[in-house]
Amino acid sequence: MTNDREQAEARVAERVLAGDVRAAARLMRDLDDQLPAAVAALKRLYPSTGRAFVLGVTGNPGAGKSTLVDALIERFRKQGHRVGVVAVDPTSPFSGGAILGDRIRMSRHATDPGVFIRSLATRGHMGGLSRSTADVVTVLDAMGYEVVIVETVGVGQDEIEIAAQAEATVVVTVPGLGDEVQAIKAGILEIADVLVVNKADREGADRSVRDLLGMLELRGPHAQPVEIVKTVASTGQGVDELLQAVERHRARALLPPPGRAGEGSPRRRKRAEAMLVEAVHDRLRRAADEALAARADLRERVASRAIDPYTAADELLAALLHGPEHPRPGS
Amino acid sequence: MTNDREQAEARVAERVLAGDVRAAARLMRDLDDQLPAAVAALKRLYPSTGRAFVLGVTGNPGAGKSTLVDALIERFRKQGHRVGVVAVDPTSPFSGGAILGDRIRMSRHATDPGVFIRSLATRGHMGGLSRSTADVVTVLDAMGYEVVIVETVGVGQDEIEIAAQAEATVVVTVPGLGDEVQAIKAGILEIADVLVVNKADREGADRSVRDLLGMLELRGPHAQPVEIVKTVASTGQGVDELLQAVERHRARALLPPPGRAGEGSPRRRKRAEAMLVEAVHDRLRRAADEALAARADLRERVASRAIDPYTAADELLAALLHGPEHPRPGS
Repeated sequence: MTNDREQAEARVAERVLAGDVRAAARLMRDLDDQLPAAVAALKRLYPSTGRAFVLGVTGNPGAGKSTLVDALIERFRKQGHRVGVVAVDPTSPFSGGAILGDRIRMSRHATDPGVFIRSLATRGHMGGLSRSTADVVTVLDAMGYEVVIVETVGVGQDEIEIAAQAEATVVVTVPGLGDEVQAIKAGILEIADVLVVNKADREGADRSVRDLLGMLELRGPHAQPVEIVKTVASTGQGVDELLQAVERHRARALLPPPGRAGEGSPRRRKRAEAMLVEAVHDRLRRAADEALAARADLRERVASRAIDPYTAADELLAALLHGPEHPRPGS
Repeated sequence: MTNDREQAEARVAERVLAGDVRAAARLMRDLDDQLPAAVAALKRLYPSTGRAFVLGVTGNPGAGKSTLVDALIERFRKQGHRVGVVAVDPTSPFSGGAILGDRIRMSRHATDPGVFIRSLATRGHMGGLSRSTADVVTVLDAMGYEVVIVETVGVGQDEIEIAAQAEATVVVTVPGLGDEVQAIKAGILEIADVLVVNKADREGADRSVRDLLGMLELRGPHAQPVEIVKTVASTGQGVDELLQAVERHRARALLPPPGRAGEGSPRRRKRAEAMLVEAVHDRLRRAADEALAARADLRERVASRAIDPYTAADELLAALLHGPEHPRPGS
C-alpha cells in the first residue's frame, strides 16, 4: 500500500518535472487542500527548485498592475524565458475579477505554452494564502519556468507577506490617486526594490516621482537603493527601462539570473526560511480549525456567554499542544 | 504571589470598568503583546461586554472613510452615545497615516472625553490583527461605549475578517474610481449591510449607484436587503440618511440598540464564536513563532537546502502538537 502510494507520488512529481501542465494544475489544486499525497509530491519537487527568478508586482487596485504584468510577460518571452504567473489580486483579470475587455486582452498569453497562469482566490484561503502562493511558486520553479511573476494587491498583511516571498518586488502606483503616498507609506515602501509610476502620461506623474523620491530620502543614507521608473503599460512605454532597473537590482542583490541555480544568495536563503514559516503557520491553523470544528460544545458555551472566549481558547489549546515546554498562553 | 497577581489583575479590570482611559490604553498595549496579566484582566472584563453596537466601516483607500467616521461620531455624540473608534486603516488619519490637514481635522474628537480612539498598526501584527481588534472592541464595550466604530481598508483577508466581527458593516465607495465595482465584487459585497457612495457630488455618482444595484440583484431573491446611500461626508450631506439605513438594518437583524445587553441576537452569538476562533489562531501562531525561534538549527538546514521546508515543518509540528488524535498534517 505504502509502496503504491509512494509510486503514485513519484509519478506526479515526474510528470510535473516533465512539464505536464495538466498534472501541475491538478497538483496545485490538491496543494490548496493540502492533500498529504500532494505535499509528498511537493517534497519530491523541491530539490529541482531554486532556479526561477521570482518577481513580485504589487500596488493599489487600479494602478494598472495587470497591464504591466502583461507587458513584462511579453518582454521576458522575447528574451527566451518561460514565464509563470501567480495572480493573488482579486481585481486582476488573471483572477477572473476584471471586466470582459481586460480578460480578452490578457488571454493571448493563455495560448502560449511558454506561459503558465495560475490565479489564487483571496476568498476562502483564510490566512493560508501566503503558503498557497509559495507552493505554486515552488511547482512553477520545479517545472523550469525561468521567471515567476507574483501579482498581488499591496494592501493587506497577507499580500505584504506574499510580496516578501519574491526575490525582487516592483511596487506600482499612478499619478493623482490622491492617496498613493499614504498607501505606500504604510509598509509597502519597505518591500519595494523598484518603484513604478504607471499611467505616466497622466497629469501629476512628475509630482508623484518627486513625492516618492522624498519618501525614499527619509529612509536615511544606509538604505538600499530603490529606482523609480515611469511607465505607460498600455503602450509599452518605459517597460524596457523597468526591466533594466529590475536587472540592476538583481545584480546589486547578488541574485542569480533567471533559470540559474542560486541557493547561495541571501535572498534565496531567506525565501526558503519564509517557506518554512508559512508551512508551519498554515498547518497549525488547519489543526486549530479541525479542533474547533470538533468542539461544538465549547463553541456553544462561548456563543451563549456561559464561558468567555479567552478561557475557552486556553482549554482548547491545552488539549492541542504539548506539555510544559510550551506553556499555555494567557494562563 | 498568585494572590497578589490576581489582585493586580482585578485592579486593572476595576479601573477600566470605572472608565479610566489611561488604564484602558495600557491594557490595550499589553493585550497587543498578549501579556498573561492582560489576558487575565480581559477575562474579568468580558462579563461586562455585549452592550456596545459594533459598526464596521470599510472601503478602498481614498473613499473618504475617515471623514465619514468623523461625521458619524458627531451624530452619535449628539444622540448622547459615547463612541469608541478602532482604526485598522493604514491610510486613516486616526492611525496617524494621513497628511497633516486630516489629522488636525480629526483631532477635535480627541479632546472629547466621550470619544476614545485607538489605532492599530497593520505592520508588525502578522496575522494577529484580527484578534487585536477583537480585544480592543471588548475593552471599549466593557467600558460602556455604546457605539464602537471599526474602520478598516476593505481589501486584505485580515481586513475582511475584522469587518466580519462588526454587527453591522458599512462599505464605502466613491464614483469614478474606475475599479470600485471589481474591488467590491471581490468578497466585500458579502459583508456589506449598507452601501455608501461617498463624494456623491462628483460626476458618476448615479452610475455607481446603478452599478451597485445591479450587483445586488445578482445575489438572487433570498439575499438580505442592502440599502445604498449617497453621502458627501465632508459637508455632512446624507449622513443622517446613512444612520437611518444602519438603524433599519439593526432592526431587521434583531440587533439590540446601542448600549443595551443583547447576548441573544444571532449576530452577537456569531461574534463571540469569532472571538474564540481569533484567540485560538492567534495563540497557535505565537506558539509556532516561539517554536521556530528556538530551532535555529532547523531554519539553517532549510536555508542551506539540506532539508525541504515541508519536511522541516513536519518535524517542528510533531514536537509541538499532541499525539494520534491530531495526526501530523502532510505525513
